[in-house]
Amino acid sequence: MDKIYRVNMTDKTVKLEAVPAEWAPHGGRGLTSTIVAAEVPPTCDALGPNNKLVFAPGLLTGTAAAQSGRLSAGAKSPLTGGIKESNAGGTAAQQLARMGVKAIIIEGQPKEDKWYNLHITMNGITINEETELLMKDTFEVVEALEAKLGKKTGVLTIGPAGEFLMAAANISVKDPDSKVRSHGRGGLGAVMGSKKIKFISIDETGSSPVKVADPEKFKTAARVFAKAMLDHPVSGQGLPTYGTNVLVNILNEAGGLPTRNFTQGQCAHHDKISGETMYDTIVARGGKHKHGCHAGCIIQCSQEYVAADGSYITSGFEYETIWGLGADCMIECLDDIAIADNLMDRVGIDSIEGAVLFGVAMEAGIIPFGDGKGVHRLLTEEIAKGTPLGRVLGNGTGSVGRTYGVVRTPVVKNQGIPAYDPRSVKGIGITYATSTMGADHTSGYTIATNILNVGGYVDPLKKDGQVELSRNLQIATAAVDSTGMCIFVAFPALDIAECLPALIDMINARYGLNLTGDDVVALGKYILKTEKAFNDAAGFTAAHDRLPEFFTYEPVAPHNAIWDFSDAEIDEFWNF
Amino acid sequence: MDKIYRVNMTDKTVKLEAVPAEWAPHGGRGLTSTIVAAEVPPTCDALGPNNKLVFAPGLLTGTAAAQSGRLSAGAKSPLTGGIKESNAGGTAAQQLARMGVKAIIIEGQPKEDKWYNLHITMNGITINEETELLMKDTFEVVEALEAKLGKKTGVLTIGPAGEFLMAAANISVKDPDSKVRSHGRGGLGAVMGSKKIKFISIDETGSSPVKVADPEKFKTAARVFAKAMLDHPVSGQGLPTYGTNVLVNILNEAGGLPTRNFTQGQCAHHDKISGETMYDTIVARGGKHKHGCHAGCIIQCSQEYVAADGSYITSGFEYETIWGLGADCMIECLDDIAIADNLMDRVGIDSIEGAVLFGVAMEAGIIPFGDGKGVHRLLTEEIAKGTPLGRVLGNGTGSVGRTYGVVRTPVVKNQGIPAYDPRSVKGIGITYATSTMGADHTSGYTIATNILNVGGYVDPLKKDGQVELSRNLQIATAAVDSTGMCIFVAFPALDIAECLPALIDMINARYGLNLTGDDVVALGKYILKTEKAFNDAAGFTAAHDRLPEFFTYEPVAPHNAIWDFSDAEIDEFWNF
Repeated sequence: MDKIYRVNMTDKTVKLEAVPAEWAPHGGRGLTSTIVAAEVPPTCDALGPNNKLVFAPGLLTGTAAAQSGRLSAGAKSPLTGGIKESNAGGTAAQQLARMGVKAIIIEGQPKEDKWYNLHITMNGITINEETELLMKDTFEVVEALEAKLGKKTGVLTIGPAGEFLMAAANISVKDPDSKVRSHGRGGLGAVMGSKKIKFISIDETGSSPVKVADPEKFKTAARVFAKAMLDHPVSGQGLPTYGTNVLVNILNEAGGLPTRNFTQGQCAHHDKISGETMYDTIVARGGKHKHGCHAGCIIQCSQEYVAADGSYITSGFEYETIWGLGADCMIECLDDIAIADNLMDRVGIDSIEGAVLFGVAMEAGIIPFGDGKGVHRLLTEEIAKGTPLGRVLGNGTGSVGRTYGVVRTPVVKNQGIPAYDPRSVKGIGITYATSTMGADHTSGYTIATNILNVGGYVDPLKKDGQVELSRNLQIATAAVDSTGMCIFVAFPALDIAECLPALIDMINARYGLNLTGDDVVALGKYILKTEKAFNDAAGFTAAHDRLPEFFTYEPVAPHNAIWDFSDAEIDEFWNF
Repeated sequence: MDKIYRVNMTDKTVKLEAVPAEWAPHGGRGLTSTIVAAEVPPTCDALGPNNKLVFAPGLLTGTAAAQSGRLSAGAKSPLTGGIKESNAGGTAAQQLARMGVKAIIIEGQPKEDKWYNLHITMNGITINEETELLMKDTFEVVEALEAKLGKKTGVLTIGPAGEFLMAAANISVKDPDSKVRSHGRGGLGAVMGSKKIKFISIDETGSSPVKVADPEKFKTAARVFAKAMLDHPVSGQGLPTYGTNVLVNILNEAGGLPTRNFTQGQCAHHDKISGETMYDTIVARGGKHKHGCHAGCIIQCSQEYVAADGSYITSGFEYETIWGLGADCMIECLDDIAIADNLMDRVGIDSIEGAVLFGVAMEAGIIPFGDGKGVHRLLTEEIAKGTPLGRVLGNGTGSVGRTYGVVRTPVVKNQGIPAYDPRSVKGIGITYATSTMGADHTSGYTIATNILNVGGYVDPLKKDGQVELSRNLQIATAAVDSTGMCIFVAFPALDIAECLPALIDMINARYGLNLTGDDVVALGKYILKTEKAFNDAAGFTAAHDRLPEFFTYEPVAPHNAIWDFSDAEIDEFWNF
């Protein structure tokens, strides 16, 4: 029987609630956004007692469906001031699904100056005072909890950044190798910190496999779906070999690789930080070049990046992080970038926001461009210690820009703009501008069609078709984010005819439903409109669906492209 | 012949322009807001090349009208993100008026890394590279310019805070005693800094008295007006004797004196920081207890506060600053507060924003409550040096609150809430919430009627009548802010029948017009609506016309009052 836990941190109560009928069809992002929109006052202080932090596995999480092991976290974001959903791999989603947990809603805020942890078992959730692991980094928390509770324990934790309430703080999830994955964007770690919860541990003893209404139908669909993953050149070959970092050379070639804090579109040392170089390095050193973030992942876009002596440096080493530190911050040494990635994971800040904010910090003159060791020092000596400078940085790109008066601050709705220049890849600019999440490439990944020729081709340098492309992808993504699937199922779904029907068949087989493709589109639209209504009530207007002004008057080489959409053209996005 | 100077800092050109017909009826705030609304893109970056900084003397400035020597400065505010007008006394307004300068519009932004000064004479404006006075404090700039250009030179300058582009940076104006007054609120000093202008010097050699169309009518009206100033108990007795600081004991008695970062409404040591104590101290030490901020001031609410040895500490020592450091920050020593006031003037930050932000900094644990010497240290060692902590502080109350995750951060539209608790003086809460300027007591000073029984009485603890009170005062204030008059003319204007007609007669006599009271009301409404339209286009909504959430759930002693207006009740304000 599915259940909802409601944890009140003001009075330290836990309620077990049945799933209301209107929430039953939802999972993942659809569920977190529905709950946040229903229960959180849009104008509340994101770090105050009236915000709520919601966790929800996806609709297919816990089943044998490939790629379905992601957990959604939702709240009002202290970074953007709007609604936020951020999903992550790791082990917790599948554990919670098997335990019958549809969602956990954490509300209220301790008035007293004490910290707590939550422990989840089949008997319920206990709230316990926490003193031992405060200010420990995320790796240390996972290690300590495994030592205490056993290797199988699930962990959701914040690092020091979350304890310091930094708006770039993430929530880390233990992965299958006892490292961490992240609910990265939007500062949900600060929301968890504001509730004074250092970590959530999960003991799933006594859980059972999720029930599937029609096991045979499910198995057939799952096989078709998995085959599509493996057959598509991006999800079956590019990503498993080079990871997401396959994109460095591709974006550099396209002139869309933002370099030196978004002043250039190509990076002279792209070869040193490319996916190809990363692959060769990992193979030569005996690391793992493919690796899954959760059980059941067959794309295996992750990797374990090791040092020259073979020792572990980092995993989940993504294109966006490598682009940000490598091109945007001009750091040429991949090892230095990997170490910074590990340090960001440890202190618990979003490695996209982190990469972008260091670029602005370099422009502000805090450290020179290219100074990898300087980034390490800022992470360990400033952010991890909560110094004034560390707090400026830990509060994200916008914080650094405002504090130092930097006009070239790449943010939308105060969230750092990721790894694709919107002047030369215009579709992604529409996504950055209009996403309910702030600048977020994953919410409508037009790179697929603008650059990778997936789902057809829309010329990245022209305005034509970009709004429609972004709209369709944002609608589809909102639905996919509800399933527990990773974003990369989009590649085969856009190109291989039987993929999307198989995904819908799996949902139908799991729940005994008869959803069609139209229902999935309707779900995506409902989610976007629910999120937009929250943002509107929080005070957002069309004026917030805009890129930073500098993109409109600073052309970027090599195409000398500027951001040239009119307000009316952008606002057309919401006409659906 | 009235003229407008347009100074372009991108290409270093100065244009002399005739006054367009539609701008002719305007002065002061009415003119700066009209120009900013007409020429500044509302969504532009406030520190970028598309913002403009406008200076305009009031409609009566330069005449013999009492209280009419104020200069308005306007721009898009880097603090609030909305339109901003801030007016100040000093000598520049009357100099510019006598020179026939209706407005100066400073636009563009140097691309090169150089600083400049502007020098204004009857021959025009020159743009000159500046190297000598960079990073000098405002007092040092005035001294250096008087040494170089003579005692009569007018000065508008920024301090180091403006050079660091801090959002709490003010623009200082030389006063008749070669000290400074401030365009305090909204970070206009950062806008001047973003144009890379360190100071503007004025040599009015060759200027002539402003022309008055009907000198006899003017003289008669001016006499009636001046008598009203002197006859009213607040402007004629309270303010000249105790300065604005007369309010400490009055607000403490009313339970509306925000104390310890807005957690209490009364301050135990109010006697130590009151206007009465200040008066006794100044008199005992041989300072000046009354003093005008510009030639022609007959209220003389300013003073010269001196040390025990008789040496100068500060002037223009206002209630809001003393409240902020004394009650909100719990500093008990008036000398320490006076020194901090001087240091804020020197570094060039708004002493209201400064006082409020130190309260939040104390709540964040940066220094303890009551630590006056700590405030001095933060001003001289951090803000004046542009350290990371100094920049966090110098960017204002909201910056400190966001950077340290402090929920109890008293701001509206990111501008610090001044010296009157909106829970126990509810009218001023409506002004804070709805003002186009962000939290700003001067934009609709309901304290007059809520606390001082001026213009009738509206019970400060009840909701009834507050919206109407604030609306009427905001409309009237917008009009008064266009005349070059100081805000304190409102006291006699509200209580003495012949005062307001005399003010209107002066305008009519100056320009040969036949304005009525209705025209003045229409002017006030036009200004507010023009400003609101700018803010709406910049992305503001009703959700921004709200007080911080904590006022709604934290009752304040002694009345245990909370902020209990509904959204609809607040939004009623704009129905005119």
